[in-house]
Amino acid sequence: MKTLLFIFSLSMLCILGGCRMARQSGESGSDRVAYQVYPIGTIQREGGRTYIVLDKQYEAGLKGLQTHDYVIVVYWFDKNDTPEKRAILQVHPRGDSAHPLTGVFATHSPFRPNLIAISQCDIVAVRDNGIEIKEIDAMDGSPVLDLKGDFFRFYKPGGNGK
Amino acid sequence: MKTLLFIFSLSMLCILGGCRMARQSGESGSDRVAYQVYPIGTIQREGGRTYIVLDKQYEAGLKGLQTHDYVIVVYWFDKNDTPEKRAILQVHPRGDSAHPLTGVFATHSPFRPNLIAISQCDIVAVRDNGIEIKEIDAMDGSPVLDLKGDFFRFYKPGGNGK
Repeated sequence: MKTLLFIFSLSMLCILGGCRMARQSGESGSDRVAYQVYPIGTIQREGGRTYIVLDKQYEAGLKGLQTHDYVIVVYWFDKNDTPEKRAILQVHPRGDSAHPLTGVFATHSPFRPNLIAISQCDIVAVRDNGIEIKEIDAMDGSPVLDLKGDFFRFYKPGGNGK
Repeated sequence: MKTLLFIFSLSMLCILGGCRMARQSGESGSDRVAYQVYPIGTIQREGGRTYIVLDKQYEAGLKGLQTHDYVIVVYWFDKNDTPEKRAILQVHPRGDSAHPLTGVFATHSPFRPNLIAISQCDIVAVRDNGIEIKEIDAMDGSPVLDLKGDFFRFYKPGGNGK
């Protein structure tokens, strides 16, 4: 009886372990490559103003940004992070059926395999670990993944530096 | 004896399961939030031409892109995917010490906490699961994470649709 219980428990744990590994490497259970991205802060609205508030540990990464006119904000469509929504490859742009069905890679739809959103935002002010921006088409609390300043501040147009 | 073996096996599997969970949530083993991104294709150079080749499974996502003049390409600085390089928060832009030390979020440096790269590329042609682009400042074989067409194709400037 104990032997049977042992074999049963072992099998169950292996199955559970297997499921966890499958989730780690992709919804399909295949061993496809995955990269990890971590929120560096959030978008926050307060009293009609909009801020990007970084976690304190990333504050040093903002040095110099106060001299830029705009910032490219990379954030995550976190409300759509399900295998079903990430499997959507075609949409009617703006959800308007008058627009023909279009591949998500031709749109900025919030449904896409990798839920990366990009907006270029005018900078109002940079202070400590926060940036006030004019506006952004993102939900309050959206996780921010990356920020990039004005590309041409350090690079000549036509140059190939990064 | 069998009972002991059972308890021992159970413990080992729980420990292994726990380690796997820790890796899943970040290299440090901490429980910070992480999102997974998956390559949808790669950048490929051939005979002086440059292509974005998507995995066949994503081909449907390109529908309509052939009518766009350019595409925003989101790719991954995969050569820098180490905890050490992802901890870099300040750089001398273009590696030139004449440029003052600057926060990575004010630059397009390939060293940054999330190794997301963005380029706007002119489209030469779209065929099947491939796009020929004029040029891109990326290494051959770089993993592509996302593509976005001309934002204003479906949206009026000043509108708030996405």
